[in-house]
Amino acid sequence: MGKEIIQEHLQARQYKEIRKLLETMYPVDVALMLEELNIKEMILTFRLLGKEEAAETFSHMNSDDREHLINALTDSELEEVMDEMYIDDAVDVLEEMPANVVDRLLMVVTDERLRGQINVLLQYPEDSAGSIMNVEYIGLRKDMTVADAIMKIRQVGLNKETIYTCYVTEKRKLIGSVDVKDLLTSSENKSIEEIMETNLLYANTHDDKEEVANRINKYGLVAIPIVDNEMCMVGIVTVDDAMIVLQEAATEDMSRMAGVAPNEYSYFSTSVFHHAKNRSPWLLFLMLSATVTGLILAHYEAAMATMPNLITFIPMLMGTGGNCGSQSSTLIIRGLALNEIEFKNIFRVVFKEVRIAILVSLFLAVINGIRIYLMYGQDLMLAVAIGITMVAVICLAKVVGSTLPLIAYKFGLDPALMAAPLITTLLDTSTILVYFSIVTVIFHNRL
Amino acid sequence: MGKEIIQEHLQARQYKEIRKLLETMYPVDVALMLEELNIKEMILTFRLLGKEEAAETFSHMNSDDREHLINALTDSELEEVMDEMYIDDAVDVLEEMPANVVDRLLMVVTDERLRGQINVLLQYPEDSAGSIMNVEYIGLRKDMTVADAIMKIRQVGLNKETIYTCYVTEKRKLIGSVDVKDLLTSSENKSIEEIMETNLLYANTHDDKEEVANRINKYGLVAIPIVDNEMCMVGIVTVDDAMIVLQEAATEDMSRMAGVAPNEYSYFSTSVFHHAKNRSPWLLFLMLSATVTGLILAHYEAAMATMPNLITFIPMLMGTGGNCGSQSSTLIIRGLALNEIEFKNIFRVVFKEVRIAILVSLFLAVINGIRIYLMYGQDLMLAVAIGITMVAVICLAKVVGSTLPLIAYKFGLDPALMAAPLITTLLDTSTILVYFSIVTVIFHNRL
Repeated sequence: MGKEIIQEHLQARQYKEIRKLLETMYPVDVALMLEELNIKEMILTFRLLGKEEAAETFSHMNSDDREHLINALTDSELEEVMDEMYIDDAVDVLEEMPANVVDRLLMVVTDERLRGQINVLLQYPEDSAGSIMNVEYIGLRKDMTVADAIMKIRQVGLNKETIYTCYVTEKRKLIGSVDVKDLLTSSENKSIEEIMETNLLYANTHDDKEEVANRINKYGLVAIPIVDNEMCMVGIVTVDDAMIVLQEAATEDMSRMAGVAPNEYSYFSTSVFHHAKNRSPWLLFLMLSATVTGLILAHYEAAMATMPNLITFIPMLMGTGGNCGSQSSTLIIRGLALNEIEFKNIFRVVFKEVRIAILVSLFLAVINGIRIYLMYGQDLMLAVAIGITMVAVICLAKVVGSTLPLIAYKFGLDPALMAAPLITTLLDTSTILVYFSIVTVIFHNRL
Repeated sequence: MGKEIIQEHLQARQYKEIRKLLETMYPVDVALMLEELNIKEMILTFRLLGKEEAAETFSHMNSDDREHLINALTDSELEEVMDEMYIDDAVDVLEEMPANVVDRLLMVVTDERLRGQINVLLQYPEDSAGSIMNVEYIGLRKDMTVADAIMKIRQVGLNKETIYTCYVTEKRKLIGSVDVKDLLTSSENKSIEEIMETNLLYANTHDDKEEVANRINKYGLVAIPIVDNEMCMVGIVTVDDAMIVLQEAATEDMSRMAGVAPNEYSYFSTSVFHHAKNRSPWLLFLMLSATVTGLILAHYEAAMATMPNLITFIPMLMGTGGNCGSQSSTLIIRGLALNEIEFKNIFRVVFKEVRIAILVSLFLAVINGIRIYLMYGQDLMLAVAIGITMVAVICLAKVVGSTLPLIAYKFGLDPALMAAPLITTLLDTSTILVYFSIVTVIFHNRL
């Protein structure tokens, strides 16, 4: 939307019209539109944005466009953008840039306090709460009155991300919080100490950002205060950032679960080459692993030549095993991500999965047994052999599918790696082994 | 945590101690702890909660525990719980209850206005914005002054979910919004009309709740106003509810993508029988579909008997096809959920996937070709045949994997159904067909 109109105005040099149009748009949408313009148009249009809008639009753009812009803008233009950005957004931008660009961006920031804050935030590990926190918040003292607090907000509080909860500190240590609603509904002479909440939820700068986002979600918070190891208040993480973290985490998990290296860009912003690069390693690994299954299968070639019917059931058994395994692994991976399951639950999980496997496999084995009995000349032993294999394969699949993600989690690996592709490949091999072991025993007189 | 202590206190009838302990806990945590107690302990403990805490704890409990409680509580106890709950939570509770329980719960609500509001909300379709909205919000008139507005908030605004943004209406129609931060930072004599934002984002009661939640996420909103078809303001959807919607949607998608019927309960709260019930239908369907692949495979039995090596490559080709297809389908399904991809992009998607498929398949075919050439007595034709099959299978897999979710979406089906299990089963059959067609042509003199 808007792209064609902007292009027309650009050609006609009707910059005023563009400015008017841009004023009615939200920065997120402006950023999306800029992505569709060519570089020259994009830079021209960006320069027509108001100061604040430019900064916010910049924080929503993708890294490639940002780099083009940074190369085109003058130092003083860049300084304006950096100054207007919320610090947490500025840090996000810097984290994605190559070192020389970061240096240039930090150089143009003339406000030393701001540069100091940015530098501190850049030190936090990428997945930590520190890396997504906002250092701007309203700090109160417990001996202030409600009127003092409202006055303070009037003076300093202009940032949409910080104002709804104020934090009370004493010698920089976090001791309480006051919601703006409580300020507004309390008598003006009351002291902050009287109305502050002291039973506080908080997180540490080094906590994992996904865990902190889960906490915000669980307790329905608007923001959570972040403290350092000495309980000194250093910033807040707000619900909108938490939401982005959780959405990205779900997307990442889904990618990994499909054997695709995760990617912060959207489907269309990722180039064909990068898509191929993200998908090839797992495919290569799985392809080579599957050759093992192939070799094992070839090993039973004599049996298949004697009883050709045996081949018929291979896709069904391998498919069912793989599907059962990936059902279990998916539920466990998601349960781990939502903090509903922990490693210590491993025995409870296995016990549950075994019971589920028995129910499911008996159901499938009976239906399939009847089908085989009817379709293959009432060969009861064949129906029984496939039935036993089915039960064994499903039980194995459920146990492997549910325990591997838990074990990966225990060893600090991403459980999402232990999903369908890997589990399926692993189970393919074991299904073939189980299948032919069982039929060799049952049909020893026929084979 | 806390469970054992509560049980000890219950046995010793130290109810005061329990009350003290409960006061220090958050309602979400109380609800989680109650789940671990037996029914009698749970009811006893619930009765020891303060009014507000009881209502909030109730809204976080699972439906089974809620039913036990409802059966045990007196009408007047229930009325207290219902009165103290936020209306949107009350509606959530009612939506999950059987009809007779809903009747009893609505009976105990003596406040007719509240009962009316609940009844209206119960009418909205389950997945609509109306079903998750909150009807309590601060409404202002444009001719009020900032001081009037603050006064109004002092009088009525006590709900954590409603206070941060106030909405300006004229004859019930939504005309603007004012952030509390703007009230606090504007001069008291200014009129609301002067400071209100009129370029508003809003949603309709009948919009899909996931779409509304995505909008809240995209624009980083704290709440979005919900209007009816006449643009009359009827409620708001807040960011915490949006976050829950998005998390649930991701969980649902992951379940469906693994062939599991989605479930609102956590892994452990779902019984073994329900787990089996959620997993069996897809397994049954896929098992029966896989028999088709088996029959086709059996059809080529003669070829395999003549050239036993052909069997060896089946798991690898089927595995690679399935993995390639599920990579594409997963990325498209997620892109659709995040509104990054639409049906109209289908040709752009196919064009992209074909180019990716060519890159990926050439890479895999070359590596695999070298392996086969070296391992199978420098049989160049075999390496070439498997290579050609690989390229064909991967291209097919990427196209099928990426288009099926888009087509499902177009026809109003859940794209997540077109994920790994279905795609893999479909591709298994076509892989076998493609494979044997190619080898029959290439080795027509050997077979």
